[in-house]
Amino acid sequence: MLMYELIKKKRDGAELTKEEISFIIDNYTNDKMPVEQMAAFLMTVFLRGMTAREATDLTMAMVDSGERVDLSNISGFKVDKHSTGGVGDTTSLVLGPIVAACGGKVAKMTGRGLGHTGGTIDKLESIPGVTCSLSKEKFVENVNTIGLALMGQTAKLAPADKKIYALRDVTATVDSIPLIAGSIMSKKLAAGSDGIVLDVKTGSGAFMEKYQDALNLARAMVDIGEGAGKKMVAFITSMEEPLGLAIGNSIEVKEAIDTLSGKGPKDLTDLCVELGSSMLLISGIAASVEDGKEKLRNVIKSKKGLEKLKAMVKAQGGNPEAIDNTALLPQCKKEIEVLSEQSGYVEKINALEVGMTSLVLGAGRMKKEDIVDPSVGIYLKKKVGDKVEKGEPLAVFHTDGDMKKYEDAKKRFLAAYKIGPAKVPSPKFFYARVTKDGVEEF
Amino acid sequence: MLMYELIKKKRDGAELTKEEISFIIDNYTNDKMPVEQMAAFLMTVFLRGMTAREATDLTMAMVDSGERVDLSNISGFKVDKHSTGGVGDTTSLVLGPIVAACGGKVAKMTGRGLGHTGGTIDKLESIPGVTCSLSKEKFVENVNTIGLALMGQTAKLAPADKKIYALRDVTATVDSIPLIAGSIMSKKLAAGSDGIVLDVKTGSGAFMEKYQDALNLARAMVDIGEGAGKKMVAFITSMEEPLGLAIGNSIEVKEAIDTLSGKGPKDLTDLCVELGSSMLLISGIAASVEDGKEKLRNVIKSKKGLEKLKAMVKAQGGNPEAIDNTALLPQCKKEIEVLSEQSGYVEKINALEVGMTSLVLGAGRMKKEDIVDPSVGIYLKKKVGDKVEKGEPLAVFHTDGDMKKYEDAKKRFLAAYKIGPAKVPSPKFFYARVTKDGVEEF
Repeated sequence: MLMYELIKKKRDGAELTKEEISFIIDNYTNDKMPVEQMAAFLMTVFLRGMTAREATDLTMAMVDSGERVDLSNISGFKVDKHSTGGVGDTTSLVLGPIVAACGGKVAKMTGRGLGHTGGTIDKLESIPGVTCSLSKEKFVENVNTIGLALMGQTAKLAPADKKIYALRDVTATVDSIPLIAGSIMSKKLAAGSDGIVLDVKTGSGAFMEKYQDALNLARAMVDIGEGAGKKMVAFITSMEEPLGLAIGNSIEVKEAIDTLSGKGPKDLTDLCVELGSSMLLISGIAASVEDGKEKLRNVIKSKKGLEKLKAMVKAQGGNPEAIDNTALLPQCKKEIEVLSEQSGYVEKINALEVGMTSLVLGAGRMKKEDIVDPSVGIYLKKKVGDKVEKGEPLAVFHTDGDMKKYEDAKKRFLAAYKIGPAKVPSPKFFYARVTKDGVEEF
Repeated sequence: MLMYELIKKKRDGAELTKEEISFIIDNYTNDKMPVEQMAAFLMTVFLRGMTAREATDLTMAMVDSGERVDLSNISGFKVDKHSTGGVGDTTSLVLGPIVAACGGKVAKMTGRGLGHTGGTIDKLESIPGVTCSLSKEKFVENVNTIGLALMGQTAKLAPADKKIYALRDVTATVDSIPLIAGSIMSKKLAAGSDGIVLDVKTGSGAFMEKYQDALNLARAMVDIGEGAGKKMVAFITSMEEPLGLAIGNSIEVKEAIDTLSGKGPKDLTDLCVELGSSMLLISGIAASVEDGKEKLRNVIKSKKGLEKLKAMVKAQGGNPEAIDNTALLPQCKKEIEVLSEQSGYVEKINALEVGMTSLVLGAGRMKKEDIVDPSVGIYLKKKVGDKVEKGEPLAVFHTDGDMKKYEDAKKRFLAAYKIGPAKVPSPKFFYARVTKDGVEEF
């Protein structure tokens, strides 16, 4: 097999075989191919696309480049969840506990990553004592006993993805549906769950700004997962404004606790119930979407979900009292209200800019080496459709007391809000649910 | 300017500016860009194409990567000719002399290249004593006095082309019209003539097998040349069967001498008259195509063209007597007739395979280091449409006496001939003439 011929084949629009795709991924991962050939190949994929079969084979070749997590010692159907990322996305900290409380087995591996706020691991580790550096044995044990564990992802999962991503990053081949889908799904499939519920975000704060792109990505990932023998559901949901009210680390933990106590923001609660219901459905625990939702609402009402969070925190070395008494979570040095400079209605919130504001305050990472401050962040007081008077707070900034940072963040934050004269409706939140059977638009 | 953004721009189908294209070529040529970015860019050009303006800017950026030949000391309009290459293409050795005999100024630079037979330089240097390693001063002087000189092309012309070609060669981006056109035209434009007549070959023995591809390439090159201020004419002609009867080096010189004496094969003579007429037309020497043709036929009849070849040979250090007495040209060790194994009519000759046969006999180069044997080659006795009896010679092989090579070549040669029961017409030879004003199909 010659790489030249494979580039040519894809360039001319033909479909590559499984063996050909494996050849490409193996050779590139093992430094047996000039980087310029892989670069040319990635551009052919970008411009010619891939069939569902090709994308599945690509993903599986990337899975095969590294280790697979062996979850066979966990009894029952293992279910995972993945979000393509947004601003103030506290979902995992709520979803895991409520699904586990209904009997689901949530064995979640996740990366730290870069972003406006820390990743789910950073958020969870803002609880005093909690670690996500678990041994595989402990991870399996915790899922078996509690139904839930959250562990840092090792570099041994799908190493081909990291290497290919670095090349995509300099060759303008990042925004390719099959390549994005392969990148996400290779890590998810290597992590070993039996089913995966995906939350693909769309809107100004999302990687996939346009609905149609998000839909294509969702379809591609569902096809890949099903092609690999997994049960798959993908949702397309809005990231037009930040999700919930909290953006940061410990303040998102507090918001998760509020939500698990039935006092969370409506959008976050609805999203967790919707995603969770599909997790229960593919796990064989719920008979229907409605049945799943009812089960989840019940464990929120009964606080059985909250108990699961507490049990996980304890099992991962943390202080479970911090769940009941959030004053034990990291507290910022200074809370400062950010006041509206005009009266009217919130028309739009640029979610990405709000995320960047929280990064300025210290809640996230620009570079891998950056240290996340668990105590800082933003607590929104107004969302789209809300009435606001001049001088009324739009948000409360949780700061480290550095007024220079605060001023920079405030300027950015105020520019992210568009306040107009007339009330606008809240942006559409749920767009679609995608399964192997098709697309159900809401 | 960021290369990433330029790849993205072309990837998304936008037109690059002159400055952007210069940035890309400069940075790649000067090793200031990772090779993977150039590879991805070349694939975007392959799949997205280029506008005529972009292709001209690309070509000029490649010209600017090296030296330009200064022909300003040559009086009058300097005219060049280029063929995309075929089998048995003796054209340059006839065209230069007849155009010069009509008063044209032909300052031709050419590469040695790889191929079935040597390049024009190898052919000319098969004449005892001739050298194409001229100083620039001598080159200019010869064109001024004789109207004709043929010089080896230096590596200093369009060095970007060499570097880009090497990358295209491993990334499956060779067969791209703007990249091929840029590669050819950058060297032609750097060589400094005022006008260029192109012979774009199509058919089984040509790089551009399909007429439409040849037409697109011809158009692209005419656009580039005109965009650079040159007078351009391109012809599309057939390479369905070898051109003329001789394929080799000294035997092609002999064929050129025959043609210049009015005794050449019809297809070669017609081609030289057709191309030459356009050279005279853009030089301002002929009033019309017909006028040009008449002038050329006259210099063949009067042998003034043959005198020009003799003068050039003498001026480039060769023995002019070899033109009158071709026994002084390198003679092969053994001539062997290749006999037809069946009776009928020649239906098809695979030109490329005949070219490969001459390579087997030693007439060409597989690798740059190979040494061309000037004395060997193939003299065809039958072309498409000819009647042939079993046992009648299809060709005479001029060999070095190595019977193993002869047997290999013979097997290949016989397989290249398709002999059928019925007479077929000769393949169409002239397809089209392309100028800035449009395409005239024959």
